[in-house]
Amino acid sequence: MIPTIEWSGQIVRMIDQRKLPAKVDWFICRGYRDVISGIKDMVIRGAPAIGVAAAMGLALGARSIRTASYGVFKDRFRRMADEMLIARPTAVNLRWAIDRMTGIVDSMEGLPVDDIKSAIRKESEAVLAEDIEINRKMGKNGLTLIPKGATILTHCNAGSLATGGYGTALGVIRAAHENGKKIKVIADETRPWLQGLRLTAFELMQDGIDVSVIADNAAGSLMRQKRIELVITGADRIAANGDVANKIGTYQVAVLAKENKIPFYVAAPISTIDPATKNGDMIPVEERAPEEICRIGGKMMGPSGVSAINPVFDITPARYVSAIITEQGVIRPPFQKGIKKVLAGSTLP
Amino acid sequence: MIPTIEWSGQIVRMIDQRKLPAKVDWFICRGYRDVISGIKDMVIRGAPAIGVAAAMGLALGARSIRTASYGVFKDRFRRMADEMLIARPTAVNLRWAIDRMTGIVDSMEGLPVDDIKSAIRKESEAVLAEDIEINRKMGKNGLTLIPKGATILTHCNAGSLATGGYGTALGVIRAAHENGKKIKVIADETRPWLQGLRLTAFELMQDGIDVSVIADNAAGSLMRQKRIELVITGADRIAANGDVANKIGTYQVAVLAKENKIPFYVAAPISTIDPATKNGDMIPVEERAPEEICRIGGKMMGPSGVSAINPVFDITPARYVSAIITEQGVIRPPFQKGIKKVLAGSTLP
Repeated sequence: MIPTIEWSGQIVRMIDQRKLPAKVDWFICRGYRDVISGIKDMVIRGAPAIGVAAAMGLALGARSIRTASYGVFKDRFRRMADEMLIARPTAVNLRWAIDRMTGIVDSMEGLPVDDIKSAIRKESEAVLAEDIEINRKMGKNGLTLIPKGATILTHCNAGSLATGGYGTALGVIRAAHENGKKIKVIADETRPWLQGLRLTAFELMQDGIDVSVIADNAAGSLMRQKRIELVITGADRIAANGDVANKIGTYQVAVLAKENKIPFYVAAPISTIDPATKNGDMIPVEERAPEEICRIGGKMMGPSGVSAINPVFDITPARYVSAIITEQGVIRPPFQKGIKKVLAGSTLP
Repeated sequence: MIPTIEWSGQIVRMIDQRKLPAKVDWFICRGYRDVISGIKDMVIRGAPAIGVAAAMGLALGARSIRTASYGVFKDRFRRMADEMLIARPTAVNLRWAIDRMTGIVDSMEGLPVDDIKSAIRKESEAVLAEDIEINRKMGKNGLTLIPKGATILTHCNAGSLATGGYGTALGVIRAAHENGKKIKVIADETRPWLQGLRLTAFELMQDGIDVSVIADNAAGSLMRQKRIELVITGADRIAANGDVANKIGTYQVAVLAKENKIPFYVAAPISTIDPATKNGDMIPVEERAPEEICRIGGKMMGPSGVSAINPVFDITPARYVSAIITEQGVIRPPFQKGIKKVLAGSTLP
C-alpha cells in the first residue's frame, strides 16, 4: 500500500484521498495550517489517520515558532493545538494526538526550545509507527472472530488509508487473509463520499483480497439472504458505555445485523475510546455541506436548489455491538466494564 | 407535472427519466420494440408506469400487424406480448397490463382486425386514465394515516414519474399536502439510480412540497433521532401474504422503522398485488449491471475492474409493513385476509 501520510524531509505529505482511486496525488503540507486544511477538506480522513496527521501538523507548527523562550513557545503551541482541535468534531483521536503532543511540551518545561521541537517531531513519528503496530495487534486479536471462508461486510474505509497503515476493520480482514482464512469482503459503497467504492475496494484489490462493492441499500437484503456472515467496521469515537460513533450508515448496518442474527464487530484502537464521553448522545456529530449529497464526481445530479441533510456520522448504541476489537484484546458486553479494564492497561483475552 | 408517458398522434412518447432533472427530453416510440427498450433501459420505470407503457407498446405493436385474419393477428400479438413480458422481471403490473390487452384480443374473436386494433388503442388510453384516477383514490384513502405536520420518509420515486400521474406513495403525500396537512418529506437519494435525488425531489419541488434529500445511509439515524414520523413507499409486487418487493433498500428502511416504532406504509394499486405469488421469496429479483454501482453520472468512481453486486429490488416481509394503501382502502394486518377481500372487489375502510 502507498503510505497514507509521511514525513518527507521537512514537509509532511499525504495521499489526496479525494482523488483516489483515479489519481494518486500527494498533498504537500509545509505548515500546520496545511494539515488543518487537509483534515477539514477530507484529503485525509479516518479517525486514526486524523490523529497521526494532527501530531505531524503540530510538529510542523512547532518548527515555525521563532522564539527561544519556553513560555512564548508554549503559548503559541497551545494556540496552534486549539486551532487543530476544531478541524473536525467527531473523531476523538484528533484530541488524543493533540493531548499527547501538548503533553511533550508540558513535560519539557524550561528545556531549550530546539530540543522540544525535535522531541515533538520524534513523537509524531512515534505516533505513526505505533499506529501501524497497534493495527497489526488488533488484526491478530480479531482473528478468532473470523470463521474460515466467511463473507464479511464492511462499511466506509477503516483501512490502511484511514490509519497510519494496515487498518482497523481492514486490519482484521488483512490478518484473516494473511492467515489463510480465504475470506470474502463485501464493501458498502458508503455514500456520500464513496469511501467503500473508492478506497476500500482499491485497498483490498491491491492486496489480492476478494472484494465486491454494493450500494449501501443492498446490505440488509444480502444479510436476509444469508450472504453475509459478519460485519466489521471502524469507529470515530467510542463512549464509556460502548456506544459507537462511526460513518453515517453504521447504525443501520448494526440494526440490520442484529435483526438477522449476524455479529457486528467494531475494530478500533484504545485511543478511539473516550472515557469522558458517557454515552453516544454526547458525541458531536458533524454535518457537512448538502452539496456533498447532490454533486457526485463533480456533476450536479439533483434538481437545482434542492435541499439536503448531510450528517456524516451516526451513533450505534452499544446494544447492537457484539464486540470491540482493540490492540489490548476483544472487549465483550457489558462494555462499560471491559472498557474500564483496557483503559487501566489490562489485556483482555 | 410533465406527463410520464402519452400518446402523441400515432406515436408514444415518454420522458427520458435517465436524463432528469438536468434535461427534459422525450423518448419517441414508433413501435413496440422501442417501448421494450424504454422499459429495459430505464427510460421509464416504476411498476404502474411500466404497466401503462406495456399497454401502449402493445397498441403500437397491434397497429403494425398487417393482416385481415383474426388468427394471424392473435398469434403475432401473443408473440409481441411474450416479448414485452420479459422486459423486466420484478414488477407484476407489466404482466397485469399485458393480460388486460391480450384479454381484449381474446374477447373480440372473429371481429374485424381493424376494430380490434382500435379497441386496443382505446384500452391503452383507459389504462393510463384509470391509473391516474386510482392514484388519486389511493391518496384520499391514505389521508387518515398522515398526521398534521408530519415528516415523512420516502424511498425511491413512487411519484407521478413512476405512474401515469400523481403517484402512489407521492400520491398520498400530494393528497396530504393538498389537504393542508403541512407535511415535510425526506427523500432517500436511492442508490444506485438516485431516483430519490433526481426524480422525487424534482417532482415535489415542482409542487411546492417541502423536501430534503438524504444519503440512504442517514435514514436510520434520523429515525433514531425522531426526525421521521412515518415512512411511505411504493411497491413493485405484493405477494398474497403481504410480502412486498420494492426498490433495493426498502427492506432496510422497513426494519429500521420497526426498530424505531415508526409506521411503515406501502401505497400501491390492486394491480401490484399478485395472488399467484404466495410469498416474497417467490418474487424474481432483478440484478442489473455492476457498472450501475461504479459509474455515476458517466464518471467511473471505483477502481478499474472492481466487482459489484447490484440487486435492484428487495423483499420486505409482511411483518414489517404497518398497512398497504390501495384504491379500495387501507389493508391492515393480517394481510392475507385483507388482500383476498380487495381482490374479490370489496372496499375496505
